[in-house]
This record gives sequence, C-alpha cells and structure tokens, in this order.
Amino acid sequence: MGKTFDSEIKKLRNNIDSIDRQILELISQRLDQVRQVVALKKIHNVPVYHPAREEDLISKLRNQASTAAVNPDFIEEIYRVVLRNSRIEQTGQMKQQAVKAGANVLIVGGAGQMGQFFAAMFRSSGYTVRILTENNWNEVETLCRDTDLVLISVPINVTLKTIQRITPFVPPTAVLADITSIKQAPVDEMIKYFKGPIIGLHPLFGPSCSTLDKQIIAVVPGRDNPACQWLVDQLTLWGAILVSSTAEEHDEIMGMVQALRHFAAFCFGQFLCQQKIDLEKTLEFSSPIYRLELGMVGRLFAQSGNLYSEIIFATPQRRDMLKAYVSSVNEQITLVDNNDKALFEQRFSKIADWFGSFSEQAMRESDFIINKIIERF
Amino acid sequence: MGKTFDSEIKKLRNNIDSIDRQILELISQRLDQVRQVVALKKIHNVPVYHPAREEDLISKLRNQASTAAVNPDFIEEIYRVVLRNSRIEQTGQMKQQAVKAGANVLIVGGAGQMGQFFAAMFRSSGYTVRILTENNWNEVETLCRDTDLVLISVPINVTLKTIQRITPFVPPTAVLADITSIKQAPVDEMIKYFKGPIIGLHPLFGPSCSTLDKQIIAVVPGRDNPACQWLVDQLTLWGAILVSSTAEEHDEIMGMVQALRHFAAFCFGQFLCQQKIDLEKTLEFSSPIYRLELGMVGRLFAQSGNLYSEIIFATPQRRDMLKAYVSSVNEQITLVDNNDKALFEQRFSKIADWFGSFSEQAMRESDFIINKIIERF
Repeated sequence: MGKTFDSEIKKLRNNIDSIDRQILELISQRLDQVRQVVALKKIHNVPVYHPAREEDLISKLRNQASTAAVNPDFIEEIYRVVLRNSRIEQTGQMKQQAVKAGANVLIVGGAGQMGQFFAAMFRSSGYTVRILTENNWNEVETLCRDTDLVLISVPINVTLKTIQRITPFVPPTAVLADITSIKQAPVDEMIKYFKGPIIGLHPLFGPSCSTLDKQIIAVVPGRDNPACQWLVDQLTLWGAILVSSTAEEHDEIMGMVQALRHFAAFCFGQFLCQQKIDLEKTLEFSSPIYRLELGMVGRLFAQSGNLYSEIIFATPQRRDMLKAYVSSVNEQITLVDNNDKALFEQRFSKIADWFGSFSEQAMRESDFIINKIIERF
Repeated sequence: MGKTFDSEIKKLRNNIDSIDRQILELISQRLDQVRQVVALKKIHNVPVYHPAREEDLISKLRNQASTAAVNPDFIEEIYRVVLRNSRIEQTGQMKQQAVKAGANVLIVGGAGQMGQFFAAMFRSSGYTVRILTENNWNEVETLCRDTDLVLISVPINVTLKTIQRITPFVPPTAVLADITSIKQAPVDEMIKYFKGPIIGLHPLFGPSCSTLDKQIIAVVPGRDNPACQWLVDQLTLWGAILVSSTAEEHDEIMGMVQALRHFAAFCFGQFLCQQKIDLEKTLEFSSPIYRLELGMVGRLFAQSGNLYSEIIFATPQRRDMLKAYVSSVNEQITLVDNNDKALFEQRFSKIADWFGSFSEQAMRESDFIINKIIERF
C-alpha cells in the first residue's frame, strides 16, 4: 500500500464528500421548492398530492438515468424515498384524536426529555399543556388550578419529594400520575399524600423515539381506576401497549429487565475501555450480531450516567440482586480457572433446558434481526 | 385558479426538474468516483466494502443535514439506498464465476456444517469438490492427488492433529487453508508441517446463512500470498468481505468479539436460570431492546455447548482475559456495595469519552434495529 494508495484514496473520498455536500444542498433546495408548491396549492385549494405528477417525474428521471449510464431502478429507488418524504412534508403531522379534548394537563418536570416528549404528545392531540419546573414553582397554584391531569416526570431521586410538594395543590378531581422507572415507592407516596385518582406509569422507552406506536408502558393502578381510564385510553389511542401489574411485581421484574442488563453492559464497556481495545479494528472484524451487541453496550454510554445510576442503585433489593449476580459470575469463572470444559458444558445444557423453547424462538427472532442488519449495509 | 396559479406552479416545477437533473448528474459522478476507489482497492487487495467508513459518512451527512434544516433521517434513508447500490455495483457482477475454473478442492471435515457450506459454494462455481472424513481416510492419498486447495474444516480441538495427519499427502503446489476460529496455533502448525502456499481463514458467520454476501472472513496470510490469491479472489467474488490481520491480532480481537461475549451471555443465562425468573412475564414487560438482548442470550443456548466451550476455553491467553474481565466486574460491584453513585457516574463518563462518537452511532444503529423489531410485532 503506502503513501500513493492512501493519498489517492483520500483524494477520491474528498471528491465523493464534496459531491455528497452538493447533493444535500440540492435536496434542501428541492424541499424548499416543494414547500412553495404546497403553499400555492393550499391558497387555491388544489389537492396537494398528485400521483400522476409523481409517476411522470419518475419515468422522466428513469430516462435521464439511462442516458447518464446510471441504473434507472437505482434512481427510482432514491426518488421513491425523496417523494415519500416530501409527501410527509406536505401532509404534515395530522392532529391525533383526543379522548378528553381540551383538558388541562400539567407536566411536573416538563423541561426534562420525557416531560417534553409527553408534552408534545398531549399538545398534538389538542390538550392544553402546562409545564411546572423549579423556575416557575412560584406559580404552582395557578398552574394546578382546574387541571385534569398532573403527570410527574422528574428524576427518580426527587420523585418522592416532588410528590409531597405538589399534592397540596392538585384538585381532588384531577388524575395524579408519575412515570418513574420504579413504582412501589412513588405509588405508595402518591396514595399517602393525595386523596384523588392515582395511576403509576413506567414508559419502557426513551425520549428518542418519535411516536408511542407499539411502545410498552407498565401500569400500576393506584386509586379510582374509572377516573384514570381516559388517560389509559389516550395512551392506547397513541398506539402504546399498556401492561398492568402490582408495584412489587413491576419493581422485581425491572430489576432484571433494566438494572441487571445495564449493570452488565456497564461492566462490559468498562472492561473494553480498561483494556484499551481498538474499537475500529474490532468493528472491522465484527459479525453483524457482535456489531449489534457492541452497539447495545455503546448506546448505554450515549445517554446520561445519572439516569443509569438511578436505575441501578434504585433500591436495596436491587443492589442485593446485583451482588447475587456477581457472585454467580465468580462461580462461573472458576470453570475457566480450572479449564473445566466438561462442567461448563454440563451447566450449559442445564440452562438450555431451563430456557426451553424460548432459545429456539430467540434464535429465529435474532436471525431475522441479523438479516435486517445485513440488508441495511 | 387561472393563469397566475398555472404559471407559478409551472415555474416551481421547472425549478424542481432542473434540481433533479443536477442531482442525477451528481449521482452519476459519485458512482464514477466509487468505481475508481474500487479499482484502486482491487490493485492493492484492500477489502472493497468498509462498514466503518460508511457509518462515518452517514454520521457526517446527518450533521450537514441538520444544519441545512433537512431531516437527517430522510438523508440517511436516501444514502442507505445510494451506498447499497454502489456496493451492488461493486460486487454484483457474475457472482458464480470461478476464478480457477475446474480446479480440485479437497474439504477435510466436509461432513461438518461449515464444510458442507463451502463444498456447496465451490460446486456452485464449477469446482471439483472432494470430501475427506474419518470414514474415507483410507483414500486420503487418492483424494489429495493433484488437488489445488486443501481446506481444513474440522472442530477446533482436532485441528492441529488433522494438520499433522494431512500435510504429508498435500501436493506442494496446492494451497493449504483452515477455517478455525483461532488462527495462531493452526497457522503455525501449517507452516511447520507444510512447505507450500498457506492461508488461514476464519469465517465470522454460521453455516445457517444462505450466501457469502457481505459476510466477513478474517484472513491470516501464511506463506506465498500470490499462490493463495485465487482463493482470496474467489471468496471476494462470492461477496465476502475479507479482513486481513496477523494471527496474534486476530486471536486477541476474537477473544473480545467471541469469547468474552459468549462468556458474559453464559453468565447472564446461568443467573436467570438460578433465580428461576418468570421468562414469560419478563418478556411481557420487555422493551424491544431488552427482548432483543434476552434473545441474544437465549440464542446461545439453542446451540451446541461444546462449540461455545471450545471458543471460551480456546487458549490460555483467552482464559486470562476472561479472568481479568471478572476481576474488573468485581471492582464495579463494590460501587453497588458502597452505594457510591458518584463514583459510578464518574467512571461512566470516562467510558463514554472513550467510546466517543461510536456510542452515538450505536444509538442510531440500534434504534434502527429496534424499529425493525417493532415493525415485526
């Protein structure tokens, strides 16, 4: 290889990058023109989306492609994407139906990411959304007045304190709800300090997702379910899947679903960092499934360390469970220490029996995913 | 409506058409640059497709998009199409063609799954494929006669023995290759016992996949690369991505890519089984990403315990690395033991810095995957 190769490759890549910048610039110009067309059509009440015009355009481009020695299917594929996206641009986000149209929603901690997410959802359905943060706490009384829902969306470590502070101002007819990732303590606290309808929620997704479609929300009933039903219906209408349980059951399962998983990922990342492994090189050698698993670890560290410490350190039971996990890991490493393959394989098949049909299913599901990754590249 | 509307629309549409012509022109220029990169890489035997480079490019374009007020997802969608098509452009032509038409290929262990996979690939390109197993070992001399390639595809624990047994019969002009998941010991052994061309391979995929397209194969040169080039070209022609390294580098990286990952998954499964957690209930509460992670663990136990013990226990270095991992896990659990959130978050951000831009990228990639899972259910 050597210099010439590197410099020639570099030159070509620079050309490609500058071509890409020009393409991007043109696409943004195109979107701008499309917006003008839409505006004009709106004024004259002409239907915005024009299938015939799109097909015209595609066939014209296919012809131009052939003459430019570019595969017409390739160009069509690109323009299907372009046209679909400008259509989305045109039709805009249609307002979603509201179960309790015009109701007042107060989001406590509405400046946080999850708070903003729910604020946007409620607004998009025509609710009146109010935001309460430390900065406007002096207006708490006004903000709570004839509100229909108070949604507590604050960091886990200030949830209980916030419940105590807000409840005196919440109308007894309003629904009091929280979205903390543990449920026992917050729900108990809400029941203790508030006499009206109560429901505990735990959205099992991050604020990065664009919709609630098929997202899971854990639900822990607190008091007066009928009065809370409209909120449940609204979340369902937005496409969320609501799974109900007791607070205790929820917290125990989440220990596994969140704390253990995050702790294990943290340890993995810590070790990679400590060993100073060459990430780039490792990725070059990565099968799609490892790329994905490394991604699972990597994505943890794209997020807030505080968020994860709150989840991992949430409760004493949780910390005990993590300690139990590590002592079991220490049991397993003795197999490696003694180079005892036989015992490893013995334990392996015992675990395989326990997983039962799930492992087959997991194999199928992850194969599907792996193919999706391969397709993507 | 009337004239003004018609003429204004016409003007805007002409603008869009001319923008589209420019985009098309740039795409054809881009393909041309890509062809030059490919040609250059072919000359220097550099793998054509580079996932890392593509992800860099996407990240860069997403940033440029945001500053140009274009939806980054839109641009990413377009460029996934562009990149996939330039790759098809690169590898597409005549996959089945044989680089060394009619050559004789002997697969040692050809009854095994990987052996069968490669037997089928070579046959599909018109090679004469012979299979050597324990059952026809008595014919070893005949089978080795004027063979052009001897591909050793046996379990890792009998690889060295097999190399010693077969080499006396291999013509010095034939290429000797193996597909073991470790490379140091097998390549050393081949060099020691065979005087002809040698190349070590490690396919980073299972026999379940249908083609070699975009599958990664690690390559460790042994001796006389020019004589081995036809095999490298054949694998590339089948669509595989060949990544070259020293045996030492390969084994070190695979310790991370395979052994550590499998050991961690084993420990996770062991703990879930030991705690007798309710899998069904846990899955009900599972966000797509946890469902996927649990699936990653589950799929391990759908496969052979022996396969994994061979990978985990492969070498002393590997076992030491795993012990280092567990002691680092023990360091981390003291944080939980001392309920020391502050130190946890301190370490967390140190790791986040180390991961750098990869974690953002991992976030995006896994979000994409998560959406695929959601679409599916």
